[in-house]
Amino acid sequence: MLYLEDLFVGQRFESAEHLVDAEQIKKFAAEFDPQPFHLSEEGAKCTLFGTLAASGWHTAALTMRMLVEAVPLADGLVGAELQLAWPKPTRPGMRLRVVAEVMEIRPSNSKPHMAIVTMRNETRDQDDQIVQLFTVKMPVFKRPT
Amino acid sequence: MLYLEDLFVGQRFESAEHLVDAEQIKKFAAEFDPQPFHLSEEGAKCTLFGTLAASGWHTAALTMRMLVEAVPLADGLVGAELQLAWPKPTRPGMRLRVVAEVMEIRPSNSKPHMAIVTMRNETRDQDDQIVQLFTVKMPVFKRPT
Repeated sequence: MLYLEDLFVGQRFESAEHLVDAEQIKKFAAEFDPQPFHLSEEGAKCTLFGTLAASGWHTAALTMRMLVEAVPLADGLVGAELQLAWPKPTRPGMRLRVVAEVMEIRPSNSKPHMAIVTMRNETRDQDDQIVQLFTVKMPVFKRPT
Repeated sequence: MLYLEDLFVGQRFESAEHLVDAEQIKKFAAEFDPQPFHLSEEGAKCTLFGTLAASGWHTAALTMRMLVEAVPLADGLVGAELQLAWPKPTRPGMRLRVVAEVMEIRPSNSKPHMAIVTMRNETRDQDDQIVQLFTVKMPVFKRPT
């Protein structure tokens, strides 16, 4: 497990792959984002997407799952604020993975046992195209003494 | 259903309430964000959160569900990029709702039938405290002629 002392700017983490299928896309959409283009192939036809596409929030949730496994911070991954973009939709059959990089480590003035770490997380498909890009600021703590 | 012509800056939408419970929090966490503070009361004890807290992505997904019901755009709610913050965690027993406001409507130069609409979405608990704030840019289309 990693503590603040183990992190450095430019450090990279890469997750295992996750295969997305139509069933997962429809199940997530039914619970959290019930719009025609996320619910069925038929419903997606005359929309912006043309064919079934995952909710961006589904891509985000899958990304978090992969990040939790790939970036073993001892005190956990807890985001305070972030910027997020979905350059292209996640589709059935895509194999996603996350490439994460430490961009900045900013020590806290008031709390010497922690820093705010900025990470950039790219979610890529099997052709290395980016389906989601997010940059997040997280508190990271030193190893307990 | 609403089209671009029906939107104006300052327009507000308010969703119905959603009651969050521990079971929902643990179920989402097990699938998408399996960290101790999201998985069980016991696991949350010696962490930053102290007691069970929902994954931020769960708050985001629940917010999307409420937005889809509260903002009936004819061509759907499709975010391209966004900024998001979680000022405080979502806890079991909270009743969440979303208050959305149209902040900007920017006509497209190249595509006269659409605009990029910026919406600010506050997810509030039963005491009106903000658990999530996100600002999103979305394409919105004119009524077909």
